[in-house]
Amino acid sequence: MYEKVIRDNVHGDIYFNHPIFIEILDTPEMQRLRRILQLGGTSLAYPGATHTRFSHSIGVYHILTLFLESNDLSHLSSQDKKIVLLAGLMHDIGHGPFSHSFEKVCLQNHEKYSTEIIKNPQGNIFKILKKHKINPEEVVSIIEGTHPNKILNLLVSSQLDADRLDYLQRDAQNCGVGYATLDIRWIVRHVRIVDHKIVFPKKSIHAIESYLLGRYHMYKQVYDHKCSISFDALLEVWFKRLKDLYTSKFDFENPQIEVIFQELLNNQIIPIEKYLQLDDYSMFDIFKITQKSKDKTLADLSARLLNRKTFTIVKATEVNKNNLIKQLENNGFDPQYYLIELIPKKSIVYQDGVVNGKDETIWIQNSTQLEPLSKYSMFAESMKLINQANNEKIFLFPKKLV
Amino acid sequence: MYEKVIRDNVHGDIYFNHPIFIEILDTPEMQRLRRILQLGGTSLAYPGATHTRFSHSIGVYHILTLFLESNDLSHLSSQDKKIVLLAGLMHDIGHGPFSHSFEKVCLQNHEKYSTEIIKNPQGNIFKILKKHKINPEEVVSIIEGTHPNKILNLLVSSQLDADRLDYLQRDAQNCGVGYATLDIRWIVRHVRIVDHKIVFPKKSIHAIESYLLGRYHMYKQVYDHKCSISFDALLEVWFKRLKDLYTSKFDFENPQIEVIFQELLNNQIIPIEKYLQLDDYSMFDIFKITQKSKDKTLADLSARLLNRKTFTIVKATEVNKNNLIKQLENNGFDPQYYLIELIPKKSIVYQDGVVNGKDETIWIQNSTQLEPLSKYSMFAESMKLINQANNEKIFLFPKKLV
Amino acid sequence: MYEKVIRDNVHGDIYFNHPIFIEILDTPEMQRLRRILQLGGTSLAYPGATHTRFSHSIGVYHILTLFLESNDLSHLSSQDKKIVLLAGLMHDIGHGPFSHSFEKVCLQNHEKYSTEIIKNPQGNIFKILKKHKINPEEVVSIIEGTHPNKILNLLVSSQLDADRLDYLQRDAQNCGVGYATLDIRWIVRHVRIVDHKIVFPKKSIHAIESYLLGRYHMYKQVYDHKCSISFDALLEVWFKRLKDLYTSKFDFENPQIEVIFQELLNNQIIPIEKYLQLDDYSMFDIFKITQKSKDKTLADLSARLLNRKTFTIVKATEVNKNNLIKQLENNGFDPQYYLIELIPKKSIVYQDGVVNGKDETIWIQNSTQLEPLSKYSMFAESMKLINQANNEKIFLFPKKLV
Amino acid sequence: MYEKVIRDNVHGDIYFNHPIFIEILDTPEMQRLRRILQLGGTSLAYPGATHTRFSHSIGVYHILTLFLESNDLSHLSSQDKKIVLLAGLMHDIGHGPFSHSFEKVCLQNHEKYSTEIIKNPQGNIFKILKKHKINPEEVVSIIEGTHPNKILNLLVSSQLDADRLDYLQRDAQNCGVGYATLDIRWIVRHVRIVDHKIVFPKKSIHAIESYLLGRYHMYKQVYDHKCSISFDALLEVWFKRLKDLYTSKFDFENPQIEVIFQELLNNQIIPIEKYLQLDDYSMFDIFKITQKSKDKTLADLSARLLNRKTFTIVKATEVNKNNLIKQLENNGFDPQYYLIELIPKKSIVYQDGVVNGKDETIWIQNSTQLEPLSKYSMFAESMKLINQANNEKIFLFPKKLV
Repeated sequence: MYEKVIRDNVHGDIYFNHPIFIEILDTPEMQRLRRILQLGGTSLAYPGATHTRFSHSIGVYHILTLFLESNDLSHLSSQDKKIVLLAGLMHDIGHGPFSHSFEKVCLQNHEKYSTEIIKNPQGNIFKILKKHKINPEEVVSIIEGTHPNKILNLLVSSQLDADRLDYLQRDAQNCGVGYATLDIRWIVRHVRIVDHKIVFPKKSIHAIESYLLGRYHMYKQVYDHKCSISFDALLEVWFKRLKDLYTSKFDFENPQIEVIFQELLNNQIIPIEKYLQLDDYSMFDIFKITQKSKDKTLADLSARLLNRKTFTIVKATEVNKNNLIKQLENNGFDPQYYLIELIPKKSIVYQDGVVNGKDETIWIQNSTQLEPLSKYSMFAESMKLINQANNEKIFLFPKKLV
Repeated sequence: MYEKVIRDNVHGDIYFNHPIFIEILDTPEMQRLRRILQLGGTSLAYPGATHTRFSHSIGVYHILTLFLESNDLSHLSSQDKKIVLLAGLMHDIGHGPFSHSFEKVCLQNHEKYSTEIIKNPQGNIFKILKKHKINPEEVVSIIEGTHPNKILNLLVSSQLDADRLDYLQRDAQNCGVGYATLDIRWIVRHVRIVDHKIVFPKKSIHAIESYLLGRYHMYKQVYDHKCSISFDALLEVWFKRLKDLYTSKFDFENPQIEVIFQELLNNQIIPIEKYLQLDDYSMFDIFKITQKSKDKTLADLSARLLNRKTFTIVKATEVNKNNLIKQLENNGFDPQYYLIELIPKKSIVYQDGVVNGKDETIWIQNSTQLEPLSKYSMFAESMKLINQANNEKIFLFPKKLV
Repeated sequence: MYEKVIRDNVHGDIYFNHPIFIEILDTPEMQRLRRILQLGGTSLAYPGATHTRFSHSIGVYHILTLFLESNDLSHLSSQDKKIVLLAGLMHDIGHGPFSHSFEKVCLQNHEKYSTEIIKNPQGNIFKILKKHKINPEEVVSIIEGTHPNKILNLLVSSQLDADRLDYLQRDAQNCGVGYATLDIRWIVRHVRIVDHKIVFPKKSIHAIESYLLGRYHMYKQVYDHKCSISFDALLEVWFKRLKDLYTSKFDFENPQIEVIFQELLNNQIIPIEKYLQLDDYSMFDIFKITQKSKDKTLADLSARLLNRKTFTIVKATEVNKNNLIKQLENNGFDPQYYLIELIPKKSIVYQDGVVNGKDETIWIQNSTQLEPLSKYSMFAESMKLINQANNEKIFLFPKKLV
Repeated sequence: MYEKVIRDNVHGDIYFNHPIFIEILDTPEMQRLRRILQLGGTSLAYPGATHTRFSHSIGVYHILTLFLESNDLSHLSSQDKKIVLLAGLMHDIGHGPFSHSFEKVCLQNHEKYSTEIIKNPQGNIFKILKKHKINPEEVVSIIEGTHPNKILNLLVSSQLDADRLDYLQRDAQNCGVGYATLDIRWIVRHVRIVDHKIVFPKKSIHAIESYLLGRYHMYKQVYDHKCSISFDALLEVWFKRLKDLYTSKFDFENPQIEVIFQELLNNQIIPIEKYLQLDDYSMFDIFKITQKSKDKTLADLSARLLNRKTFTIVKATEVNKNNLIKQLENNGFDPQYYLIELIPKKSIVYQDGVVNGKDETIWIQNSTQLEPLSKYSMFAESMKLINQANNEKIFLFPKKLV
C-alpha cells in the first residue's frame, strides 16, 4: 500500500495514500509556493509568521481528508475524492509574490493563473493529471466553483471550508497568537450534506461560534494589522514609481527590471512561464537592485520594502492633509508616492446571506429544517453590530514626519 | 519607560526595555537574517521549518533576559547585561545563505563575518553601538569567547547556552517534532556561578537530562536528516561545477553570476558589502538563472536545488562503487558531480570534558564541590555508548539510479 | 534563600519564596481543599475536570505573583505583597463540598466560613499568621473587599482578578475545552494603577477581548452545562428529602447522618470544626449510606448522585406540567422531589458598570482619561445583546419519562 | 447512527459508536473509578494529578479505537473489536483505593477483582454484556491475557499497549511534566501483525525511542517520586497498626472500622459487594475517623495520611539505624511503625526479552525478519546500563528527626 507522510507543525503527521499527490507536490509549480509566504507583509510584524503557501496547501489537503472521512461524505466515489483533494492541494498554485499584495498590481487574479497553470498542456501538472487519468478541467472547475457536484466546490470554498479551517489555525500558530484548535475536528466530523448544501447539526454550534471568535480575533490582531496595510501600500507606490519612470524612458541600468516587468509596465498580463519565475524571493532580489537606482524615490521605496521601514498610519480625521503635504515636500518626499490615502477593506467575520454574490450563510440543521446560524447563535447575531462598524479613511506616510 | 514587544511563536511575548535593541533589529544587517532560514536544506523535509535566523536571534535575546533574571546573574552591571544581550542578538549576524551549508563553500566562517559586520565603521551596527556608548569590541569579544568576564561568553556559547536553548525548541516546534519546553525555564532559573563557571544544582539534573533527551531526539529526526545532508552535498557540487566552468572560461551569458561570485571563483574572500547582499533568497534567484544555463550539468544541479530533487543516500557497504559509476555514465551523469562520497559528521549529544578544544562539561554542584554531569546521570553516562557509534561512509547520487 | 517549587499542570513551575506560604499549604484546613473539586457536578460531564480548589488556590497565588511584578505594583511594600498573596492563597478556604452547589443548602456562605477559619484562634492558620507577624484581620479584609488599600482587594476580586484569570484557564484546560492562554501574561504585565483603580492601557484591549471571548465560551460549554445544573438540583432535592424525613422522625439507622447534619437539619449554621470535616469525599460517603436507606426516595436520589444518573432538562414551554406530574406519579416518583422547576441563573460575560453592587467595569486608559471597555471594544458592546437574552424556565425530571 | 462523544483533556473528543460502551460507563462499578485517583499518593506531590482511573479507562478505549483503525487490525471482526474495546474499558475495574498502594494490603490483586466483577451474574456489567450478546468470559480472557487470539491480549497488555500509551501521556500532562505526544499516533498507525506478534516497522523506531525516553523521564520524575513511596509506606504501617490494635482487642469506638475491614483484619479476602464500596473517598473518610482514635499512633498516622505529612527518605548508608531508633523512641515514636526499611522497586524502562515471565521485547520488522529493538536502537541498548543501576535500601521516618 502506497503511503507517504509529511510532518506538519500545525496538524502533525499528514498522510498521502496515492502517489499522484506527491508527484504534484514535487513539480516546480508547487515547489514555487515554498517561496511565497502565506501572510506577505504581515511577517514583518510577526517574525514567526514565515509559513508558506506550500505548507498551507498541504494543510488544506489534510483538512479535506478529514472532511472526506465524515459520515455524509465518505460515500463519494474514490475518483471524486481524488479530484477534490487535488483541487485543495492546488487551489493556491496561481498565487504571485506576497500573496494578495502583489495581486493588486497584476492585471489577472491568482485564481485565473491557477486555472492556466493546471490546464497548461506544456506544464508538469497537466501531464501528471493525464498520466493518472484525471481530467484537469474537473480539478479546475472545483477551484472555480463550477463543478456540477456543488458539495465539492463548497468543501474548497465556503464559510467553513478546508481553506479557511487551515489558514486560520496555521496563521494563528505561526504568529504566536494562541487560539484553540480542538474544535476543528468536531466541525469537520459532524458536517452533513442536505439539499446540496453543507450543513451543521445544532450540537456543532458551540464549535462554530468558537471558530468565528477565532476569526474575529485574527482579523483584529493579524489580518488587519497596520504592518500589512502599510506593506501593501508601499508595494503599490513602488510599482507606481517604477511605471512612471518607465513611461518617462528612465534608464534602469540593470536590464532585468525591464525584462521581468515588461508586460506589466505595458499594461499586459504576465504570461505563465514568466509568472512562474516570480515569487517573494525574486521580488526581494529586485528590491535589492532598485535600491541602488539613481532615482532617489525608487531607491528609497525599495530600501523601505527590504528593511521594514514601513509607513506610519494615521486616521484622516486626525491630521490636516495640506499640512502633511507641505511637510512631505519640505522633507524632499514627493507626496504622489509618500502620501497614501485609503479606506482599509472591511473584514466581515460572519454574515448570514449573500456576500459578494456568494451565499455565506452557515446553515444549521434543526431536525428537518435548515436555518441560518444567527437564528441560534447570539454571538453570530452580535457580529452584525461589528460588521456595521464604520471603517474610516486613513493616511500613510513616512514615520519621521509625525 | 521604554518598552517594545515582539510576539514570538515559540516563547510568546518578548520584551525590549531599551531602544538600542530595536534600532539594531531595524538595521538592514539584521533584517537580512529574515531571508536566511534557520535550518537551510532541512526545510525541504519539514515544510513548517521556515523559521529564520532573525526569529532565532530574537529568541536568543529572550533566553538571555531570563538568564539575567536568575539569582546569581541579576547582580551583573546594567552595562554588562546590555552587552551580553547585544552579543546574543547579533551572534548570527554573519551567517550566509543556507546557514551552515554555504559556509563550506566560503573561505571565511560566519563568526569572522559577524565580527567584521559589527566592527565595520561604515556599517549601521557600529554607528548605533557608538551612539549608545557601547564598545563594539566588547560585543565582539563575547561572540568570540574572549571577554574577560568568562560568564558572559558562556551565556552565549557553551553546553547549555542561550543559543542552543533557543534553537532546540524553535527547530522542534517549527518542524512539528514535539518535544517538551517547560524545563528550559527551570534550567535557566537555577543556574549558578561558581569559580567563573556556569554550574547547576543537583535538583536541575532531571531538567538537564530532559534537555539532552530532546537533543538526542533532534539529531536523529532533524539535524542528521538525509534531506539536509543531500542538500548540502548538492550545493557543494553545484558550486564545484560553477567553478570548473569558470576556470574553463565558460560563457555564463548572465553577467550577474560572475559579478556575485567573482571573489569566490578566484579563491578570495567575499568582501562584507557584497556578502551582505547574499541570503537564501538571492541564492534561489541565482539557481533560477543557472537553471537555464547551456551547460547541462549546471542547469540540472540548479533545478535540483530549486525543486527538491535531492540525491538519494546509500551506505557505502551496500553498493558497488564501480557499478555505480558505470550506471551514472550510462545515464549521462558525470560522476565527478553526481557521485558524492562522505562520512556524515558525528553529532555528539553530550560528552564530559573537552570537545574541539572547548570544555563541554555540564557541571553539577553538590554542596561545595563541582562534578561533571555523568557522575550523577546514568543517562549522560549512557550517551557515551551512543557517541561511540561508528559513522559509516555513504554515497549520494540521483534517485532513479537505484 | 528560601525557595520551594510546585509544578502545576496549568502554569508550570510555581515558586514560593517565603516559608509562610508552604506552612499555610500544609495545614489540614488547606489540605482539605484537595478533596473539593473545583467544578462540582460539572466533572460528571468532563471526566478530566477533577482539578481541585487546592490547585486553584496555588494558581491564584501564582497569578498574583505575576501581578506584583508589574511596573505599577512592584512598589508595594513586601508586607502588603505577602498579605495579598496570603489572601489569594486562602480566598477559597471556606468552600464546602461541591463548591457552590452545597452552598445553597448551607445557611452561611463560603466567604463567611473563610473569614471564620482564618480568624479562629484555635486554628492552624491563625497560629501561622501570628508566628510570622501577619495580622489575620488584614488578610480577611482583602477577601472581604474592605482593605483600605483598594488595589489589594481588586487584585483578588474584580473583573480581571487573579481568581478569574486562574480558574478560567484551569477549568478550560482540565475540561479539554481548548482556549488560548498566552494573553493572560500580557494583561497582567500591563496593568496600571490610576485613581485607586486597576486600569488597562489601550494596547491591552485585544488581550482583554480574547479573555472575554474565552469566558463566553466557557459559560456556554462548561459553567452552564446541563450536567452541572442537574447535579445541583439533585443535591437540593436530596437534602430536602433528608430534612423532610428528619422532620417526620424517620429512623435513619446510621447515626452518622444525624450527627453530621444535626445543625443544618435544625436550621442552624454548621460550626467550623464540623464544617472542616466536610468535603466532596465525605458527601459521597454519605450518599453511599443513604443509598441503602429504607426510604425509597432518599435511596434513589442518593444512587443518582453517586452514579451520574442526572435528571433530564426540558424547556418549560415544551412540556405540559400536569401531564408530567401524572407521568411521574404513575411511575412512582413523588413530584415534590422529582420535578424541579427553575430559571437558570444568567451568566453575564461582561457589562460595564455596577453588577450586584460592585463596579464591574473594565477601565481603559486613553492618555489621561479612563473610559469603560465598551467604549473601545465593539465586542464588549455586543455582549450587551447576549446579556439581554431571556433565560427561560426549565423543568428537570428523571430521564426515562421523556 | 448511534454516537456519543466524551471530551477528554488528554485526547480531545472521544467517540463511542455503540450504546454498550456508554451503558458500561454508566454502571456504579465503572462510576466508582471516578473516585480512585490514577496516581494515588503521587497527587500529593503534583497537585494537578487528580485524574482518575475513570478517565484513564476512557483513554485506553480511545487508543484501542486508533489501533483498530490501523491497516493490519482493521480486518478484525466487529465482534472481536467490541470485545477488545470492552476489555480495555474495564481492565482497571477491579482497582481498589489508591490504586496500587492499597493492593499490597489486600489479599487479592486488582486483576482478580476485575475478573470477579465482570463475571458476577448479579452485577450490572454481566447483565449488560449478556443483553448485547457478549460473553463475559471472553472479555475477561483478554484482561487475563489468555484469549486464543493473542493479538487481542497484546493490545491491552504488552510493551506498547493501549494501557501504557494512555497513562504515560495522561500522567505527564496532569502532572505538568511536559513530554511530547505527537508520536503516539505514529506508533499506533504503523503497527503490524506478524506471527501473532505486534511488531513495528523500522520507520517507527524514532517514535518508539521517543516513547521510551518519555518513560524514562516519567519514572525519574513521577513514578519513583519519594512522595509516592512515602505515602505507600505510611498506608502500610497505618494498616499494620489497625491490625495490631484489632488483635489486641482495642475498642475502636466507631463500629464502621471493624465492619469495613472485618475480612482484611481476619486475613480474609474482601467480598466484591463490599470491595465495590471502597474507593479513595471512603479511605479518606476512614482516616478522618481513625484520626480521632484514642490510640495516639493510629491517630497520628491517620492525620499524616490526611494532611500530607509524609515521612522523610534517607539512604540506609547515610544514617545509623540504632541512633535513629533511639531518636524515635526519645520523641515518643514507636519504631515498629515509624521506621520503615525498604528497597524501592526497580523500574525498568525497557529490556529485550522476558521480564517477570512475559516477553517484553519490542519487535522491529526489517523486510522479512523480526529483531528486538535494541538491535537498531542505541538508546534502547543504553537502557541496559540504566537497568543495572543498583537500587539501595532506604529508611523512612518522620521529618523532624533529621
